[in-house]
Formats: sequence, C-alpha cells, structure tokens
Amino acid sequence: MENETPLYIKVNEKDNVAIIVNTGGLPKGTVFPCGLELVERIPQGHKVALRDLRQEDPIIRYGEIIGCAAAPIARGSWVEESLVTLPTPPRLEELPLASAVPKPLPPLEGYTFEGYRNKDGSVGTKNILGITTSVQCVAGVLEFAVKQIKEQLLPKYPNVEDVVALTHNYGCGVAIQAPDAIIPIRTIQNIAVNPNFGGEVLVVGLGCEKLAPERLLPDGDTGRLITLQDHHGFRSMLESVMSQAEERLASLNRRQRVTCPASDLVVGLQCGGSDAFSGVTANPAVGYAADLLVRAGATVMFSEVTEVRDAVHLLTPRVVSEEVGRDLLREMAWYDNYLQRGQADRSANPTPGNKKGGLANIVEKALGSIVKSGTSSIAGVLSPGEKAKQKGLLYAATPASDFVCGTLQLASGVNMQVFTTGRGTPYGLAVVPVIKVATRSALMEQWHDLIDINAGTIATGEETIEEVGWTIFHTILEVASGKKTTWADRWGLHNDLCLFNPAPVT
Amino acid sequence: MENETPLYIKVNEKDNVAIIVNTGGLPKGTVFPCGLELVERIPQGHKVALRDLRQEDPIIRYGEIIGCAAAPIARGSWVEESLVTLPTPPRLEELPLASAVPKPLPPLEGYTFEGYRNKDGSVGTKNILGITTSVQCVAGVLEFAVKQIKEQLLPKYPNVEDVVALTHNYGCGVAIQAPDAIIPIRTIQNIAVNPNFGGEVLVVGLGCEKLAPERLLPDGDTGRLITLQDHHGFRSMLESVMSQAEERLASLNRRQRVTCPASDLVVGLQCGGSDAFSGVTANPAVGYAADLLVRAGATVMFSEVTEVRDAVHLLTPRVVSEEVGRDLLREMAWYDNYLQRGQADRSANPTPGNKKGGLANIVEKALGSIVKSGTSSIAGVLSPGEKAKQKGLLYAATPASDFVCGTLQLASGVNMQVFTTGRGTPYGLAVVPVIKVATRSALMEQWHDLIDINAGTIATGEETIEEVGWTIFHTILEVASGKKTTWADRWGLHNDLCLFNPAPVT
Repeated sequence: MENETPLYIKVNEKDNVAIIVNTGGLPKGTVFPCGLELVERIPQGHKVALRDLRQEDPIIRYGEIIGCAAAPIARGSWVEESLVTLPTPPRLEELPLASAVPKPLPPLEGYTFEGYRNKDGSVGTKNILGITTSVQCVAGVLEFAVKQIKEQLLPKYPNVEDVVALTHNYGCGVAIQAPDAIIPIRTIQNIAVNPNFGGEVLVVGLGCEKLAPERLLPDGDTGRLITLQDHHGFRSMLESVMSQAEERLASLNRRQRVTCPASDLVVGLQCGGSDAFSGVTANPAVGYAADLLVRAGATVMFSEVTEVRDAVHLLTPRVVSEEVGRDLLREMAWYDNYLQRGQADRSANPTPGNKKGGLANIVEKALGSIVKSGTSSIAGVLSPGEKAKQKGLLYAATPASDFVCGTLQLASGVNMQVFTTGRGTPYGLAVVPVIKVATRSALMEQWHDLIDINAGTIATGEETIEEVGWTIFHTILEVASGKKTTWADRWGLHNDLCLFNPAPVT
Repeated sequence: MENETPLYIKVNEKDNVAIIVNTGGLPKGTVFPCGLELVERIPQGHKVALRDLRQEDPIIRYGEIIGCAAAPIARGSWVEESLVTLPTPPRLEELPLASAVPKPLPPLEGYTFEGYRNKDGSVGTKNILGITTSVQCVAGVLEFAVKQIKEQLLPKYPNVEDVVALTHNYGCGVAIQAPDAIIPIRTIQNIAVNPNFGGEVLVVGLGCEKLAPERLLPDGDTGRLITLQDHHGFRSMLESVMSQAEERLASLNRRQRVTCPASDLVVGLQCGGSDAFSGVTANPAVGYAADLLVRAGATVMFSEVTEVRDAVHLLTPRVVSEEVGRDLLREMAWYDNYLQRGQADRSANPTPGNKKGGLANIVEKALGSIVKSGTSSIAGVLSPGEKAKQKGLLYAATPASDFVCGTLQLASGVNMQVFTTGRGTPYGLAVVPVIKVATRSALMEQWHDLIDINAGTIATGEETIEEVGWTIFHTILEVASGKKTTWADRWGLHNDLCLFNPAPVT
C-alpha cells in the first residue's frame, strides 16, 4: 500500500489544504510528484497543509473557508480537527437571493422506466400494500396481522411485492395542538399517499387516540379504516385486517408496469456516514446524476438542514426566485431556533465517524454535502414532511439524521432514494428502493454485498465524476423498473419509520 | 339495559357529582333509589350533578375540585366536558412536603414466585436473549439476524423464551451533548440491564455513530460488541451476530427458576385509554395491590407526569422526606418547562377517548390516575429512565404516553407491569409481562382475549376493591413465575421501544 503513488485531492484552485487518497494513509517523509513532503503521518481522507499557515490564517477547501488555523501549521503537516476553529455560520439576513440563478440545463429526452402509473398521475417503482396506523398502540396487532398476510395472502397475489406496516411512535401522548405537531402529522398523512402504495393504503386505528384515524384517510373513505376498539376481541380485529387486506391485494395485483418518462421519477438524495471523500467522489457524481434527472424533467430533492446551513450562502443565489429564497431562509432560521431551544447548535453534527473520516467540522461536511444538489436552479423548498408538487430540484428541509431524513423524504413523495456513504451504513427503506453509493473503493470492496455503486474510482482517477454520474442515472432507471434489485432490498434490510416530532410528548 | 337498576358512583362524601355506571348510559327521567332524577340522557361514565350548581361553583369529585361550573347546572343534569372549567395546577412552591407521611404498612410475609435469580441480585420473570443497539442504522441487519436466530438457534435452547432486538430511533443525528440527551442515553443503557436479560445482552453498533456502542456495555466487556463497520460484508456481520448469540443462548439456557420472595418483584404501574371508571375500579384495585406489594417488600413504581401534576398536592405530603419531596417537585417543574418550551401545557392531555369515557379534563384524569399508588409513603423519585435502586413505592417520572412510559419503566428495571385501561388497548412489551386490567365489565366482555383481569365488577358491586386487588397481586405472582401467560404474550402483541428524547435531532 505504501508503495502506491502518493495521491491527494485538491478540489479548488484557492484551496490551501488537500485530502490524502491512499488507503491506510501516508507516512512521514512521503514526497508527492509536486514536491510536497509530509512532515508526519496523515490518515486517509485527512487534510494536508499545502503551504505554511500562520495562526488564524483561513483554512480553505472547496474554495471556501472551513475554519481558521488554531495554531501555526507547517506545509506538509496534518491539518487535524483540533487545528481548525469553527467559523460562525452565514448570517441569514445578509444572503443574496436568486442573484445567480443558473440557466435551465439542456433538456435530456428519451429516457424511460417501467413504473406503476397511479390514478393521481404519480408513478410507483414498487407495488406494495401499505397499512398505516394512527397510533403506536396498534403496532403489535398489526405486526401479527402483517405476518399472517404475508404467509397466507401475499402468495396468491404475485404482482404485489410486499406488505408494509407503517408503524411509528406518534399518535397519542403527544401535544397534538402544539405548533410543531403539524410536522409528524403531515408526515404520517403523506407517507400513506406515497406512489408505491398505489392509493390503496389501509388505516388501522385504536379509537381513543389523539391523532384521529380519519385524518389519515386520503379521500375520506372510511371503508379503509379498521378501528380496533370497535371489534369484539383480537380474533375479530385480525379477521378485519385480513379481509380488508385481501381486497386491497386483489386490486393492487391488477397494477402493471408501463413505460413512463424519466420525468415521473421523484428521487431523494441523502448522505450518511460521510467522510472527506463524500464531497469529492460520491456526492459530485450524485450531483451530476441530479442534473441529468432535472434535465430529464424529474423531481429531485436534497435535504439535511444542519448539513446545508453552513454552506447556504452557496445555495441562496441559485434559488429561482426571492420567494423560494425566503422559504429556504425560513427553514434555516426555524432549525437554528429549534436547536437553540434544546441548548444545541449545528456543531452537534458531525459524528465521531465523520471526524475519523477526515471531516474537521460541520462547515467542511456541509460544503461536501451540498454538492449532491448539482448545478441547476433550486425550484422550490419543502418544510419537513411536505409533499412535493413540482418538478426540478427541490430543497426538502429535514434533520440530517439518516433515518429521520429518509422518513421525511418518503412523505415528500420520493419513489427512489440515492444514498452516499463513506464510513458505510446498511440503511434501507421498505417503501422505496435505496441505491447506495460508496465514496471510497475500500468501502466498496469491504461491503461488496451491501453497496450498489462505487464512486471511489473518482479519487483514484479510474473513472470521472461524469462517468459515475451516468452510472447512477442508469441504475436509477433500472431499479425503478424492477429490473435491478438494490442490495438493501435483496436482503430485506429496512430501517424503521422515524418521525421528526419537535413538539412535546405528554 | 335500561331496565337495570340505575347506578351511580359517588367517590367521596364531599362530591357534588357522580358517574353513571350503567352500560349504555341512562335516559332522561331515570330516578335513582335516592330520589335523584335525570333531567337529560347521560352516557356511561359521565357525570351527573347531585345538586344544583351555580355558575363558578366548584365541581367536586374524589373530594377535590376538578373545575368550576362554566354555567348554572341543575341537579340531575349531565356535567358535560364544556361545563367544567380547567383550574390552574397546584403551585409547586406552596406544597407541603412530607407533612403526612403514612406509617409503614404491616409487613406481608410468605409470598413467593419462581424467578430467574441474576448475579447482581435482581430477578428475572422471563429468560430472554436481548440484543441492544447503539443506533437505528443497524436495525435492518439485526432484524434479519434475529429472525434467523429464532429459526435456527432458539429451538436448541428450550429454556430461553425469546430473542428481543432492542432497536430504537436514537444513536445518531442527535444533539448528544445537549443537556436532555442524558434521558434517551440512560434509557438505552438501563434497558440492557433489565433483569429479564440475565446480564447476557449483546450490543450491535455501526461504528461511526454518535452514541458510542461501548457506552452500552454494562461491564465494559467488548467481547459482547459487534461493530458492523468492522465486518467484511453482510454475511460476515450475520455470522458474527449468530455465533455471539449462540454463546449467550447456551449461557442463558442454564438459568433455572428458583423460589424468590415477592420482595424481588419490581412492578411498574400504568394506565392508558383511561375513562371515568379508571379512578373508581381498576386504579383503586391496582392501588390496593400496590400496597400489598409494598407490604411484601417489593418495589412498585407509578409514573406519568401530566397525570400526576394536577394531583401532586395529594402526593407531596406522602413522601418520606423533604429531600424526596424536592425530587418530586423538580420532576414536575422540569416537565412544566418542557411543555412550555414546546408551546403546550398539561391540558394537551387528556385524549378524545378519555373525554368520551367521561373524563372532563386533566384534573379529573390525574385524580383517578394517582389512585394506582395506593396508600403507602413515597420512598423515592426517579428521573426518566433512571434505574430503581430501592424497595417500596417510587415515583418514576415519565411522559403519560403509554409506550414511552412503558419503555422508561423497562429502563427503571421493572420485571412486571400492570396496566389499567378503560377504552381498551392491546398494549404489550416484549421484555416483561404486562397484565392488563379492565375498568369496565363491558370492555372485559368485548376484549375477552386481550384483557387479563376485570375490575369492572367493582362498579356493579359484584366484587370489592380489596378482592380485585388480591386477584391482581396473585396474578402478578403467577405470571412472574411463568405459570400463567398474559394475553399480550399469548398472542405476542408487543409495542416498539419508544424513547423519550427531549433534546434536539440534528
């Protein structure tokens, strides 16, 4: 390993630091082709100083200041986390809105996938019976019923791929009138109308809960509602769920895949277990794919407020209008306030794993995270759990927590997710396919049966960002068509729905 | 039904309202043996005025003011929810502490159960392999592994009753340094040492998460830790979990039930889906059983801050010392502040179902709820998720949410729960048995295969509070011994672990 050509990545010509590419890091004394010599060992993904830095000199990566030197740093030294001070975040009131709106990218035509067209015009990438719930109280009964449905009924309806219980921690013992309660409520409501359920969702409620189950019926069809307190004992509950499920399965079984334009895709982008490569390999490739999707007329959303906050000055110029800009600022301000209320701030992100992976602080992490958004204009902003109603690139405000963000993107109507990871996570969702992209080849090799696409080849020069971007785009079409199965779906590795409830529990 | 003898329950001689007992309620014109005549139909569980009330007159139930009359109310009228104004809660700074400490109840000796004695002195009522997790990210992998353990390994170890994955929404994407983060963290830590796991818990972690998995190892034994990011692919992860599980199963399989004194019980008390009968049938019977348990030297805990807050003036005199009193007030004040931070207050409780069941407001609900605590002195107070370390009656501060309270009581170390319900809930826990007690005979009849004990017989005079209390006490011993199975366990109806995280998500 130490006999390989030493390699670093400098992202922007202004940068005074670069990250070490070689797996296992590089030892003291390593000399790069440019003449730079390491004065100490530096781990993979961590930063080397490209020139001498005085104390308080800005440290620049992605052409942006990620912090200042906490002490003098000699050229060739390891710019270790503790040497990088955390700058203050961009002041929201001073940001230019829609000041540099990118021109529309050239349209990309002719790309299609085989999806399930729904009555409301949306398109599913899977054909799933969803059974939602108004309250956690019913989870045990529903879990029992779903097991029985899968054993006894599902095999009779081969066109239906799965039965998913949409259970969660909400519904009762919550301050349902508190202003922030709207977030978990609309999340539950909107997940039930995710395109992959084909408009056939059932609702199981208890009967005395705060979240009235009627609020979960998209078209007020109470025939889809099973209220446990109306039943005479457990067996009767079970029979109700089974017979209702069979009706829905029969209906879903008639769904057929049809050729749909790529514009029917609604793709959620996320990163988790990020490292210093995220921003130079996987995320730029995803950003390239995002541009392809936008060019093809699809809806693409990126998220994660705390991983956008410190780079938001790079986003506000890109919003299509001042109104969308104000929406973006509103979400940032809301989150600043939410964190402050809980005596925290955005420095609570990153994680220990991010830091091991070379990310010094949230500024560096954010700069690498927003690269997923590509280069197109930002057409709209969604509050947490709001449903997307337009095409193009959207900013869907969510926490950065992988599973919370995933849950909220489901509510926003994604029919596909692309997830980049540097440290590695087995993350998956039962409702939509998740394509996982590795930032490093070492992770791809290690997790060969969990990661779908390798973007680590970008760091080593084996592939370009554009090449991996096209691979991601084509893979999205194949997976959306049911022609290719993600590793998470192959093993059935699915995370729980994790609601974002900033309102109190009572 | 309307030919039955009309019956109402007046709890305290000072009361100027009483609740209707008859199933289906009573019609206008009904005349009670005492001469009271109903001037309108009143539903079951709802309140009748026993005398004329002027506007602003106090409405008295349980001998306490539950509100004032919002309008004049004639004798024989329905004291409907909107006629009862909500009083301000007791001012915490004015409450007498330890001013009327009950004398110790006479000891109750000779009661035993067959339990699993652990090395640390605690006693399990079940023999379960627990596999805990440091972060939601690993949930999919663990779920896959647990299914395989249950199919392939568990049958070889017949003395082990179950394998439980302790998955949750916490671990990453959270402000782990925020002051309130201690609550979810200690909850996860303490659940892993619940007596029913016999000190053999495994830990599955990812590797880059904020909640370092080492923090979940009770005795720092890293041999019990499986870190997914250290593995070469999914199959390798699976093999690790399987082989570690088999070692633990072999060890757990050697556990044997031995005769233990009733003092080894740690019983959590809860109510959920309450109605106006809760406070006169099931909760007093549970209170009587609580006294029996305290007399037998056991640990008993009651919880649910918002269902105690408005009746806390009846509890502060009962605490054993001023110090315990201040602990109790601290928990009340913390929760007042927590609700206020989220722009809510304790009036966010009760639920629509509570109200349908006759409970006008949180004051009436709280007065009925605290009856579960019986009559003994309050020996100690636990903050949410803290582990109990003493015998006697404890107040374990938790939200009133059934599933959140249940999760926190598991952390506090209960090896048994007793749960009263008026509206009916299929609530259950995988870790400890939950004995469910109905407040009304109609619920018992309707949910014959879900409710374990009927306390509705108290309302009709068929049984006394003491009789049902003894039934609960004996049932606890039988269930704890594995000689009787609760309905929830019979069907395997178990709720998810639902953590209380008042700190921000990032």
